[in-house]
Amino acid sequence: MPKVIIAGAGLVGALNACYFAKRGWQVEVYEYRKDIRTMKHVHGRSINLALSQRGKSALEAVGLKDYIVNQGVPLYARLVHNKDGKTFSRQPYGQPGEHIVSINRRHLNEVMITQAEKCDRVRFFFEHKVRSVDLDKKELVVEYIGGSKIPQPGKKSESPQLRVSADLIIACDGAYSAVRRSLQTHPRFDYHQEYIAHGYIELNILPKSNDYALEPNVFHLWPRGHFTLIALANKDKTFTVTIFAPFEEFEKHMSNPHDVQQFFQENFPDAYELLGRDHIQEMFSRVKPQPLVSIKCSPHHFSDFVVLMGDAAHAMVPFYGQGMNCGFEDCLVFSEILDQMNDDIQKTLAAYTENRVKEAHTIIDLAMYNYDELKDLVNHSSYKLRKVFDLWLNKWLPNTWIPLYSMVTFTRIPYTQVVEARRWQDRILSRLGSVISATTLAGAFVLAVHFAKRSGKLPKIQFG
Amino acid sequence: MPKVIIAGAGLVGALNACYFAKRGWQVEVYEYRKDIRTMKHVHGRSINLALSQRGKSALEAVGLKDYIVNQGVPLYARLVHNKDGKTFSRQPYGQPGEHIVSINRRHLNEVMITQAEKCDRVRFFFEHKVRSVDLDKKELVVEYIGGSKIPQPGKKSESPQLRVSADLIIACDGAYSAVRRSLQTHPRFDYHQEYIAHGYIELNILPKSNDYALEPNVFHLWPRGHFTLIALANKDKTFTVTIFAPFEEFEKHMSNPHDVQQFFQENFPDAYELLGRDHIQEMFSRVKPQPLVSIKCSPHHFSDFVVLMGDAAHAMVPFYGQGMNCGFEDCLVFSEILDQMNDDIQKTLAAYTENRVKEAHTIIDLAMYNYDELKDLVNHSSYKLRKVFDLWLNKWLPNTWIPLYSMVTFTRIPYTQVVEARRWQDRILSRLGSVISATTLAGAFVLAVHFAKRSGKLPKIQFG
Repeated sequence: MPKVIIAGAGLVGALNACYFAKRGWQVEVYEYRKDIRTMKHVHGRSINLALSQRGKSALEAVGLKDYIVNQGVPLYARLVHNKDGKTFSRQPYGQPGEHIVSINRRHLNEVMITQAEKCDRVRFFFEHKVRSVDLDKKELVVEYIGGSKIPQPGKKSESPQLRVSADLIIACDGAYSAVRRSLQTHPRFDYHQEYIAHGYIELNILPKSNDYALEPNVFHLWPRGHFTLIALANKDKTFTVTIFAPFEEFEKHMSNPHDVQQFFQENFPDAYELLGRDHIQEMFSRVKPQPLVSIKCSPHHFSDFVVLMGDAAHAMVPFYGQGMNCGFEDCLVFSEILDQMNDDIQKTLAAYTENRVKEAHTIIDLAMYNYDELKDLVNHSSYKLRKVFDLWLNKWLPNTWIPLYSMVTFTRIPYTQVVEARRWQDRILSRLGSVISATTLAGAFVLAVHFAKRSGKLPKIQFG
Repeated sequence: MPKVIIAGAGLVGALNACYFAKRGWQVEVYEYRKDIRTMKHVHGRSINLALSQRGKSALEAVGLKDYIVNQGVPLYARLVHNKDGKTFSRQPYGQPGEHIVSINRRHLNEVMITQAEKCDRVRFFFEHKVRSVDLDKKELVVEYIGGSKIPQPGKKSESPQLRVSADLIIACDGAYSAVRRSLQTHPRFDYHQEYIAHGYIELNILPKSNDYALEPNVFHLWPRGHFTLIALANKDKTFTVTIFAPFEEFEKHMSNPHDVQQFFQENFPDAYELLGRDHIQEMFSRVKPQPLVSIKCSPHHFSDFVVLMGDAAHAMVPFYGQGMNCGFEDCLVFSEILDQMNDDIQKTLAAYTENRVKEAHTIIDLAMYNYDELKDLVNHSSYKLRKVFDLWLNKWLPNTWIPLYSMVTFTRIPYTQVVEARRWQDRILSRLGSVISATTLAGAFVLAVHFAKRSGKLPKIQFG
């Protein structure tokens, strides 16, 4: 029975534990936090998660999809809040019925850990901080950071540092992966980390008269050019609200309680009412804006037993809502390749890097491109028109003309093929443009405007 | 009296020690190697160094220029060896007299250490491996790795790990900088490392009848499309020879003694004769091709006391011969800014990052661009013609029209301005092209070809 060690019991680590439990392998998971199921408050980022097709498919393979989806809140459209605080425009995500699901990170994580632990070949070691990987000795270096005695880890040791080994080590230890960092000097390992100018702060909207204070089944959006506010519903009738702005903007306009209040009141009047002055001021005094990083690396595997997955392999900015979905798809793709290769780990690792590096790079670029759009492109009417046109064509040619966002969100078409298909669409449109006469174009424009009016204006940013 | 700690006693670290000795600061240098002056053989890469204007200026400020230049071998031109092993073409580096200097890395390093040590405020701690920097405690974490007792380091400690502190810490610990690695999770630190497809192996040509086996005062070049051989003279009448090729090429055509011999005999017949079959086969069996990495990061400083310089801040591929020169210029620029800021460290650090990051990124890109040329552009005749034309115009307009290579190599014009000037030249040429009639162009072409014939063909790659 092969053995796998998983570094990190976060979303991707916990899902991997489920996958290998199902595969019948012996599984050890090392996680630096305490068991989150026993904690009152979990530290760390939480930007609400939007589960879409890739994530659903990955959960389905371990029998968790339906349960998780039922625990979430479906979102069918974006609802753009205008600056007057009173008018809105609604933009469906796709065709009727197509939706993403707003999920609570912690709950999802807990469910997956519990699911994996049902199998007695799976053992979680909490409060065990992964330090590095030793490629020569084929060992993962782990340190017990808990206060009490070591709870029977893979290997006992007098010192708090353990060295554990397995046939396969999967590093799911996040964007700041210690495993990846210890491999940084590995020959020919390409690595790229880039912070964007924006940071974020999270806030909360509480229920109003025991019900949602805003419409729950939409993705709320307050786009204001270079800064923006979003809100996603939680099952407990609260909303998680996130403001994204350049660090400079935070310093200039949100550095003291009075300025913050004024900033929210002026730019997001309706949200301001629901958040409340005190809550906003308290959150801004308590937390600093958090940075957002984009990370690419290649290869994703090392030697014949180490592989990086999730944020450890490909952290991305959150503007396409694909971070978790791509990480979950990693687990599924790895499992599919293991099947194809009859559990040959070495062949699987090579094939996985070959396949997955380019996919990861592509969605990272798409997410960054959406970030750039957030700053500029969204205000161009040609961009909005294209969106309306895409959805309209998609209605008549559902299998031939799928909008970029829908391909990423509602299918498992590989990201690289998504980009290819988009280029093909662009070429068609550009040729059409050359062929069709000005008259016809004018006609199409009238039609498009008519459609745009019927379905409401497009949102200013495509987010989640 | 302020105190500076320098991580690394390589080229940039040792030069910095000279700079701060001259400035009257207290200086401690921590280096993981033994004192190279006491070693028989020094491990590590050595791709011969070509000292050009930026490096010379930096050495001049600490009174070392003349001595070092005299210890080197001046190179006035590139000499391209054709595949027949018998014909050559010569390409001057610039106007008559303009030259670069081939320098032995180890000798240069030793001279600078000795120079710095002349000052009794400077102390070198060899066999002290720098592990990390602790920004909160303002300490550098260093480990004594020597066999015997700790030779009175900055702070004594029972354990081999020391924590030393100073007003300023300069990390000159190379491309794989431990200081930089420990800062990798610092918020908003952008970092990029990229390996190229090429690797290299070093060889040697011994003296022949007690004299140079090849003409000493030229940069020897055997360009063969995607792989290439170079040779630089040393003062001891040997040549350091380096072969650059894609790793795949090494595997395909140089993986056993027979293949290596055949490969050299076929592609570099004249070099093969001088290197000798046995030497080539021995070196290829002893060492594997070494990788080449390009590293960018931003910022170059952290908190109010840490700065990265040299390869720790900006490793580049060696195809513009600017790695050391740029690193030396770092020391000079930092010193110039310290003067301007009246030794205010905090202001100096901010101004240094502001100035130096973009300069470093620019030369890294230029070096990478030259690498791409090596693979493709050099075989285009338009490219060769441009080189001839540039030098010809430069002769008549020495202050107005300086070729790209000359600006980088023979001036201290900031790299960013070099690139600006080149863009300006390109615009002029493109406008000229639109204005001048076809007849005039034909005339110019005849002239250029005439000139090209007189001055010999251009080399296939611009290197060093």
